[in-house]
Amino acid sequence: MGSSERSTLLSLEEYRSKSSFDVKQMFEEMEPPEYFEIKKKVWHFLASNPLFHVDYKNGSSEKAKARAATQLKVFISSSGLFKHIDNMSYRDRTKYLLIVNEALEIYNANVSIKIALGVALFANALNCLGSERHKKFYTDVWEGKILSCLAITELEHGSDTKRLKTIARYDALTKEFVINTPGICAAKVWVGNLGKQCTHALLFAQLEVNGVSHGLHGFVVPIRDPQTLQPYLGINVGDLGEKSGLHGIDNGWVMFDNYRIPKENLLNRVGDVNEEGEYETSFTDPQKLLGASLEILSAGRVGIVNESSNNLLRAVIIAVRYAAQRRQFCDSKGIETPLLEYQTHQYRLFPYLAATYVIKNFSNEFSDRYVDCVAASREGSLEMKQVSRMVSGVHAVLCCTKAVITWTTQRAIQETREACGGHGYHKAAGLGDLRNNHDPRVTFEGDNTVLLQQTSNWLLKLYNDPDERDFTVYPLSMFKFIDQLDAILSKKSDVTNVETLCSVSTIMTMYEGLICWLLKTTNRKMDALKSKYNDRFVARNLCQVFKAKELAIVVAEFVMICHLKEKIMLSKRTSVVIVLKKLFSLYGLWCLYQHLPLLYQGGFFSSPLHTDCISDAILSLCDELKGEAVTLVDALSPPDFILNSVLGCSDGKLYERLMNAFRQQDNGGIPLRYPDFYKAKL
Amino acid sequence: MGSSERSTLLSLEEYRSKSSFDVKQMFEEMEPPEYFEIKKKVWHFLASNPLFHVDYKNGSSEKAKARAATQLKVFISSSGLFKHIDNMSYRDRTKYLLIVNEALEIYNANVSIKIALGVALFANALNCLGSERHKKFYTDVWEGKILSCLAITELEHGSDTKRLKTIARYDALTKEFVINTPGICAAKVWVGNLGKQCTHALLFAQLEVNGVSHGLHGFVVPIRDPQTLQPYLGINVGDLGEKSGLHGIDNGWVMFDNYRIPKENLLNRVGDVNEEGEYETSFTDPQKLLGASLEILSAGRVGIVNESSNNLLRAVIIAVRYAAQRRQFCDSKGIETPLLEYQTHQYRLFPYLAATYVIKNFSNEFSDRYVDCVAASREGSLEMKQVSRMVSGVHAVLCCTKAVITWTTQRAIQETREACGGHGYHKAAGLGDLRNNHDPRVTFEGDNTVLLQQTSNWLLKLYNDPDERDFTVYPLSMFKFIDQLDAILSKKSDVTNVETLCSVSTIMTMYEGLICWLLKTTNRKMDALKSKYNDRFVARNLCQVFKAKELAIVVAEFVMICHLKEKIMLSKRTSVVIVLKKLFSLYGLWCLYQHLPLLYQGGFFSSPLHTDCISDAILSLCDELKGEAVTLVDALSPPDFILNSVLGCSDGKLYERLMNAFRQQDNGGIPLRYPDFYKAKL
Repeated sequence: MGSSERSTLLSLEEYRSKSSFDVKQMFEEMEPPEYFEIKKKVWHFLASNPLFHVDYKNGSSEKAKARAATQLKVFISSSGLFKHIDNMSYRDRTKYLLIVNEALEIYNANVSIKIALGVALFANALNCLGSERHKKFYTDVWEGKILSCLAITELEHGSDTKRLKTIARYDALTKEFVINTPGICAAKVWVGNLGKQCTHALLFAQLEVNGVSHGLHGFVVPIRDPQTLQPYLGINVGDLGEKSGLHGIDNGWVMFDNYRIPKENLLNRVGDVNEEGEYETSFTDPQKLLGASLEILSAGRVGIVNESSNNLLRAVIIAVRYAAQRRQFCDSKGIETPLLEYQTHQYRLFPYLAATYVIKNFSNEFSDRYVDCVAASREGSLEMKQVSRMVSGVHAVLCCTKAVITWTTQRAIQETREACGGHGYHKAAGLGDLRNNHDPRVTFEGDNTVLLQQTSNWLLKLYNDPDERDFTVYPLSMFKFIDQLDAILSKKSDVTNVETLCSVSTIMTMYEGLICWLLKTTNRKMDALKSKYNDRFVARNLCQVFKAKELAIVVAEFVMICHLKEKIMLSKRTSVVIVLKKLFSLYGLWCLYQHLPLLYQGGFFSSPLHTDCISDAILSLCDELKGEAVTLVDALSPPDFILNSVLGCSDGKLYERLMNAFRQQDNGGIPLRYPDFYKAKL
Repeated sequence: MGSSERSTLLSLEEYRSKSSFDVKQMFEEMEPPEYFEIKKKVWHFLASNPLFHVDYKNGSSEKAKARAATQLKVFISSSGLFKHIDNMSYRDRTKYLLIVNEALEIYNANVSIKIALGVALFANALNCLGSERHKKFYTDVWEGKILSCLAITELEHGSDTKRLKTIARYDALTKEFVINTPGICAAKVWVGNLGKQCTHALLFAQLEVNGVSHGLHGFVVPIRDPQTLQPYLGINVGDLGEKSGLHGIDNGWVMFDNYRIPKENLLNRVGDVNEEGEYETSFTDPQKLLGASLEILSAGRVGIVNESSNNLLRAVIIAVRYAAQRRQFCDSKGIETPLLEYQTHQYRLFPYLAATYVIKNFSNEFSDRYVDCVAASREGSLEMKQVSRMVSGVHAVLCCTKAVITWTTQRAIQETREACGGHGYHKAAGLGDLRNNHDPRVTFEGDNTVLLQQTSNWLLKLYNDPDERDFTVYPLSMFKFIDQLDAILSKKSDVTNVETLCSVSTIMTMYEGLICWLLKTTNRKMDALKSKYNDRFVARNLCQVFKAKELAIVVAEFVMICHLKEKIMLSKRTSVVIVLKKLFSLYGLWCLYQHLPLLYQGGFFSSPLHTDCISDAILSLCDELKGEAVTLVDALSPPDFILNSVLGCSDGKLYERLMNAFRQQDNGGIPLRYPDFYKAKL
């Protein structure tokens, strides 16, 4: 027993000693220290407050919901984390809130989502869609006096928001809106916080004035008495029961039957009912409106990208540390071999390790760009046309990256759970709950498949209309190569040696070629189908698979590696850059391997040697990363208490902790203290 | 509301009316009626006994375990399903038990696994490894007086069974075995039924006699008093806590400290300790021993293949019926379009629908072949050498198909849950629990990655040693083409029209070519690595990814389509055959698309036109299956009560049932009655 424990500990330390770079340098390269300081505050609060310590027993969902409700209240009111946010600029506040959300989510997804829905997105919506008269709600929600929810999705309609049926009719006599749910199919469903805890709903309903419909508008609708949490009379509201995960979130449903709210509760930035009881479109600065609509559409998705990157990171840390310690089968000398030494195991984990670096970097950098974009729209520092193009571009990039990142994370969690064998199935491994809690991200805040179409539509517009191509603004700046489309398409790859193939520039060139080819052929297919059927809907439907969908996926990967390329070019840390390049290449080539049919189809590849070369390159990168993997996860790892997995602790006491978990002793005994390598980082 | 319900009902009926074949004919083609009669008995018992009705509330795992324990007792003792099994032949009994297991598992995975581990596999092991003196355990377990568990895996070792450390020393003085656990790393863990309920363990431990170790042997070890379920003194046993799923199963751990059991409890078919206290290898018919070892190794995996095929089926039924009813976005005429009409959605679901037919058929047919093989070994009707080759072949085929089928099912469940959007995340959809309960199958009874190596090793032996190629016996009969390897490899594909590509023979030819190429190149790489490193372990490790692993996966797909090809060739039902061919082609081409890099690498494909053609073929097959999909799932569907999903009911009342589930009324109200199409089947 003693010897086994020593040997697993040795494994981790041995691997740490093999890495070619310094853990602290990598950490500094990947995360701005001031962001990390914010995270440390969040983690310190969670670790020091027993209310947030993990309960390893599955209990009823009722209990989980009650617990998350209390945690939410305490986190808002006692953590001290939100005291100064009103004094911050828009830019600083938004970044700050995104980082707090990230730090909380990696440890407690339920509360982070409850706060996001109930406080942050509500406050955002008031900011973007409301006016001075809604200030009180804003103050109250940040002070924890009220809690909101976003009621959009109905039983029968989700993605197709135009067909939502909940109606708010204006009653000029009483100056109220009368809200109705025309049948069960229009019940608002899946609304987080609505089941038990919220006091107000941010409701989206069709506004009708004098018998004329004016489309979807937002309303603040009182649901429960903030003192007693008793629902008000006249609405039919309830918790919608058991889900596949996120058991602490009280998703609910609600149906309205002539439920009345004051006229003032309409969020009136875009349109309002005037004193004469007539609907009028409000005058507002169109540039600010653009930023506001981006904020409304995208804030949640930016959060999801951040959260997913952390979920991916968490899964990969657990599996890499496990693989370094778990030994199975003896080599020819009779020495038991760590899983990390097996080619199959490297191929399972290292592409996801590379993806973690690519995605974490993108998530950090893109959040900044997103905030810049909204800020630019608020400040009026750019031309209207530029803002408009930035806003569409940021939206398009966010749609495809949200899809690709949430899917990559879902697959990574599954792969890592399998790579941890049977032990990965234990609750204390952390991977089962991680998968179940991450899962809804692939369909909420925009179903991934639908989102990809937003991106491909934007790209096709760019392709067809050179006027749209303002490559001076982000994110269009990454697509400058489209101007050389024909020249790019005429080039065939002649790369058949591994070293050249692994270079950043070769991979970028291959991506550019693939994007050009997909743009051209998707567009051609679309045109042909339009001529054939004379029906835009049919044509668009029939050119998704192998065309528009692939285009959006390839673009998401391209955008993410562009960001890492920039980091690589700017960094002065030589030994760090060498490893980052390998991660860049492994991620890029691993993705391109999956696109090989398209590369042959597009004529970029023609010889069997091309596949030989890309396969060899992937295996050789995996082999090179074997000695770096443990330090690479150390560099991005939160402390063990936050990582919260008996398989993934940094101290190498794998079997002792696992057996403690099996014995249900000491909750697996994960320490609050920061491990040594972590101190080295700080 | 009313209109919505009618329209969704209409959707299902409309699609049913579009199919080109008769539901009853397809049903008869796919399942022998006598098997179905057995399933109906199981389902009738489950539906008529409230103890088995689903509780839609998540509760504590303690409660789930207690409930499953009671269900197990009642199912064994009151269902009447096991009354006559002692009078059955080996062949009939085994098939019968596999079918009962299948029928139970699709509705209640916890109890089916508890019975498999606690009764069926234990009884099997007694049969195969024990002797007359163990008869009493056999009778007792079938009468429900005792319950067993299989204790093999230890904390530190699973796949590498040679390194298991639990030791059973023979004490000649008392004629007992003294069992010890040398340290926590040798604790038996993950043992299903051990946590709370079992009375006996079938323990695998290193047998030591007079200081000499004789390797792993099986022992029947009393754990708890059958009356009180109190564990016996001297063993340290417990439940290992929360898992990612299968909450009704009491997985446990146990450590032994000089725990004594009688000499007779050694399963002594292979070796025994004689009256003089000396170890002696028992004489036994080597042919029977072969069958016995196959039975021990494989019985659980055959069960897993059957169960997975049902889990896949269940996921696909739910998603196809949902997609037929769920409408989103309007076409150019303003009509809302069912998801089933979207190309992206067809491409998500129909390959899995095709996989369901391929895998269900394989699972049925292979179970028969497997039972034949064990029976042949018992009856001595074949030559020793033939039996030996059959046994190795069946083992090899089962290893790779177990891996591919469990993975395909895992991916299908995830894809279908996403294809059902947010609603797929509700517990009453059934997909979350299905995923979590299916999940351990990819790592238990042999980790998939490790199992694939068993298959590739077998194939490489076949490649290198023509003496091994006895193509007269199953499953080698499917690999006759290997004799023509060089001729096959010299052929290049010139198929660039969709119709030819979709034909059964073209797809078979492509698979044969791919297998030959992978055999040759894997072997070549292995040889080169052996020369380079002079180390078998290193060489084998370094030729897995893109080579040996792919070889085993491709062979699994090939074996499964071979079985469907046979059915297609033998069937007299013309309209059924037309659709089965489409399913064959879609599955085959969908898999081959994923192997396109290898097809180009092997020189089978060389022109971009090949990818054009395979892509077009897949999309055109999806389009052709649009009108068949609903009837295809109807033909294999269990009654709604057993399917147990508010999204997948056959009656088209999607939104009504879903809203009932949200309101937590009536448990989603799934009826016990058999739907109309089901009656048509009988």
